[in-house]
Amino acid sequence: MQIDKHSKFSEWYNTITKDAELCDLRYNLKGFIVFMPWAVMSMKRMYSIYEYELEMHGHVPALFPALIPESNFKGEKEHVKGFIPEVFWVTEAGGEKLEERYAMRPTSETAMYPMYALWIQGLKDLPLKIYQSCQVWRHETKATKPFIRSREFWWIEAHDVFATEKEAFAQVKEDMEVADKIIHGVFGIPFLFFKRPQWDKFAGAVDTYAADCIMPDGRALQLPSTHMLGQHFSKAFGVKYMDAEGKEQYAWQTTYGPCISRIYAAVISIHGDDKGLVLPFELAPIQAVIVPIYKAENKKIIDVECARVENLLRDNGVRVKFDNSENTPGFKFNHWEMKGVPLRVDIGERDIANKSVVLVRRDTREKKNVPVSELIENINQSAKDVSKSIRDKADAWFKGKINSATTMNELNSVLESAGGFVRVPFCTDAMDGEKCADKVKEETHSNMRGSLFEEKESGKDGKNKPKDSEKCIACGKKAKIYLYAARQY
Amino acid sequence: MQIDKHSKFSEWYNTITKDAELCDLRYNLKGFIVFMPWAVMSMKRMYSIYEYELEMHGHVPALFPALIPESNFKGEKEHVKGFIPEVFWVTEAGGEKLEERYAMRPTSETAMYPMYALWIQGLKDLPLKIYQSCQVWRHETKATKPFIRSREFWWIEAHDVFATEKEAFAQVKEDMEVADKIIHGVFGIPFLFFKRPQWDKFAGAVDTYAADCIMPDGRALQLPSTHMLGQHFSKAFGVKYMDAEGKEQYAWQTTYGPCISRIYAAVISIHGDDKGLVLPFELAPIQAVIVPIYKAENKKIIDVECARVENLLRDNGVRVKFDNSENTPGFKFNHWEMKGVPLRVDIGERDIANKSVVLVRRDTREKKNVPVSELIENINQSAKDVSKSIRDKADAWFKGKINSATTMNELNSVLESAGGFVRVPFCTDAMDGEKCADKVKEETHSNMRGSLFEEKESGKDGKNKPKDSEKCIACGKKAKIYLYAARQY
Repeated sequence: MQIDKHSKFSEWYNTITKDAELCDLRYNLKGFIVFMPWAVMSMKRMYSIYEYELEMHGHVPALFPALIPESNFKGEKEHVKGFIPEVFWVTEAGGEKLEERYAMRPTSETAMYPMYALWIQGLKDLPLKIYQSCQVWRHETKATKPFIRSREFWWIEAHDVFATEKEAFAQVKEDMEVADKIIHGVFGIPFLFFKRPQWDKFAGAVDTYAADCIMPDGRALQLPSTHMLGQHFSKAFGVKYMDAEGKEQYAWQTTYGPCISRIYAAVISIHGDDKGLVLPFELAPIQAVIVPIYKAENKKIIDVECARVENLLRDNGVRVKFDNSENTPGFKFNHWEMKGVPLRVDIGERDIANKSVVLVRRDTREKKNVPVSELIENINQSAKDVSKSIRDKADAWFKGKINSATTMNELNSVLESAGGFVRVPFCTDAMDGEKCADKVKEETHSNMRGSLFEEKESGKDGKNKPKDSEKCIACGKKAKIYLYAARQY
Repeated sequence: MQIDKHSKFSEWYNTITKDAELCDLRYNLKGFIVFMPWAVMSMKRMYSIYEYELEMHGHVPALFPALIPESNFKGEKEHVKGFIPEVFWVTEAGGEKLEERYAMRPTSETAMYPMYALWIQGLKDLPLKIYQSCQVWRHETKATKPFIRSREFWWIEAHDVFATEKEAFAQVKEDMEVADKIIHGVFGIPFLFFKRPQWDKFAGAVDTYAADCIMPDGRALQLPSTHMLGQHFSKAFGVKYMDAEGKEQYAWQTTYGPCISRIYAAVISIHGDDKGLVLPFELAPIQAVIVPIYKAENKKIIDVECARVENLLRDNGVRVKFDNSENTPGFKFNHWEMKGVPLRVDIGERDIANKSVVLVRRDTREKKNVPVSELIENINQSAKDVSKSIRDKADAWFKGKINSATTMNELNSVLESAGGFVRVPFCTDAMDGEKCADKVKEETHSNMRGSLFEEKESGKDGKNKPKDSEKCIACGKKAKIYLYAARQY
């Protein structure tokens, strides 16, 4: 496709999602897309990797209804205010007007917590850790972009309940660790967890911690977020338990929402190049493609060898395809590069004579001759190399996207040149700071993404606190906190 | 629970779905239920087993929007007539009334086929075999029953397109074989495939072939159905391809719908007993539970040994749980029997001394002493034995549920005594026969499920055609076909 993804990201992204057949935007409902097989096959793997990890951490799956009676929304005021404007409402069914409107879930707190109130009686019922994998619907008014923002998206939502605030906070940290293990460790996407400013938290939460990655154009994209709900929802929905002294207590809750379709957008964007997708080995629908290099009369011999190698790989657990279509090798090379297949195995007459194949890596496009007898070993090693090398590359690039500024001008200039996150001194991340955030937004088109969570946690924020002389970038008053600004999706 | 599932099925079913914590009916929206973790964990396995098999047969997954603009429904007239009365309609979103109503998909033909029309150009695009795993919504007016019939249910829908009728018909047969391999072979549920009478086919299909099993009360339950759509939908939606001569042709289509939540209902009902669930080894969320038999001061020693055996089983790929809760062994036995865990491992002091354990099968409740050194081998064998033995038991019972009758009185009496399928001579399964079917329904509360597909296919239907002397059970005219009657869900 030969479009530079950094300088022309939007064009690159639109082209790749179309040419690699990841989605079809022609479905006749605004903001809704068809997720095509090549994307769905990877997203299914992302789901199962994530679900496995959640289950290893004590979560169990459930399935709650997609429809929520309007009356359920009355409980938590901030939550209602935040979500009601985006709801799709069902008002008719079975040929009749309904007595009450049903919301298509924009998120499931109001479907799940009334049930939690029935299920939780005492300490023996806690902790309760339930996730569901599902799609949600939100009538977004912002411009939609496939996988990044649409009116129907695919996520996992985990809703956990604890007896104490301490346990709930430990869950928030566990949620972050799981995100790091999976999204960075397996999918190769670097990100930072920010504690969002109070004016930008999840509707109804006490605090929101969100993972932001940086897209190739330097704009931030929010990946999973985890929310400390405190007792806001437990009080609204009556989620109570009897403590050891026989006293009724409101439970402490957290909610965690890895959006699989959006994380997929990050995978496409951060690893892809000007030849197309570059998929981590674990997520590739096809991990190795075999391309026969026919010459004159040798088709049969080559086909036999290719099929033999295909079986060898399949028997060793590799998702393999032997591309014996009638296209030219050049066409096949381009096609499978566009699709991001991590490894290619070329087999021609000379290779057969040498009992070897040519093994080609998608990410580096590096080629090497490998004896068939050592192929499995080589593929296993290459699988690890590919995943590590694309992650390392992403990490190195990401590092350069974390900068700092102390004045509005400097902020503007860093945002223009590097993009990414820019640390600035700020008066406060409490509600009072919103005016300053609005000013920053107006003058730089960037948003305050919050304070860096890890620094707080590790005690490193001592040295990372603004010095006495530093002033809030917006109001000029004494700065009390470093916040990170970024232009965002 | 001590309720006989055959004589008091409804009571048994309501009790088991509640006591084994499979669902919660208290969600405040009529006809919608919460699928609880124990059920969802099995349903997820059912999904992945089914999806794997579909993919092995050339299907790929996609995800289409849950909402369908009303205008999409105009295409296929019979389809509209069949589904519109059951649709949940979205009429408002983002605080405004929509210009057009959106249907929550009751099934996805009208979402998918307009896209198929865009994707399919020539022979190179065929066959197209796509499935999606999703929930659908139908405003059922019949009484709902958890997993069996509710207003939201979970299924897989596969929608395939071919160049020729012959290929489409081969797909219908493949769909049946897949159903047999999975639902009978793995889940252990016996069923028969019927070609439905013309008056009872899928709205818009040429022919419907549906798998019916028999529930413990003798009533038939429809499991997957596969439909030959012919060119009905391709003509309505413009799904065309250019043939080898450059001539435009309408494609041939099939659709296949294994309803996972309903198949789960069959698994619960057909294998369960008066102690609770009996789960096939492959579907059990926990395949083996370890119960420590403490005595006085030996808790520590026993815990160590149980943990050791737990690790041994886990390392060998068994989904295992060591139940070290404070409940009594008797409580644990009952609890895990209710949950249907296929194998139990009891470990007490004497077992440790003997370097053995007590292995107990859920289905037969048979116990045996097994040396720890032979435990894995024994569990692997028991896993196969359990699955085979519950399938054999179901098969044997099912065999007795296929009978025949030649008069209305006889039919009534077989339905009363044995229930199940009753073969009767019938005038025709074309539309003309509907009057006779209505009469049978009125007099016996049974429905004509159709003609046996396998007999037709194997050529066995020669001998299974009514003799010249036989009369339609309803109208008394010469019988031309054997149809099977059953009371149904």
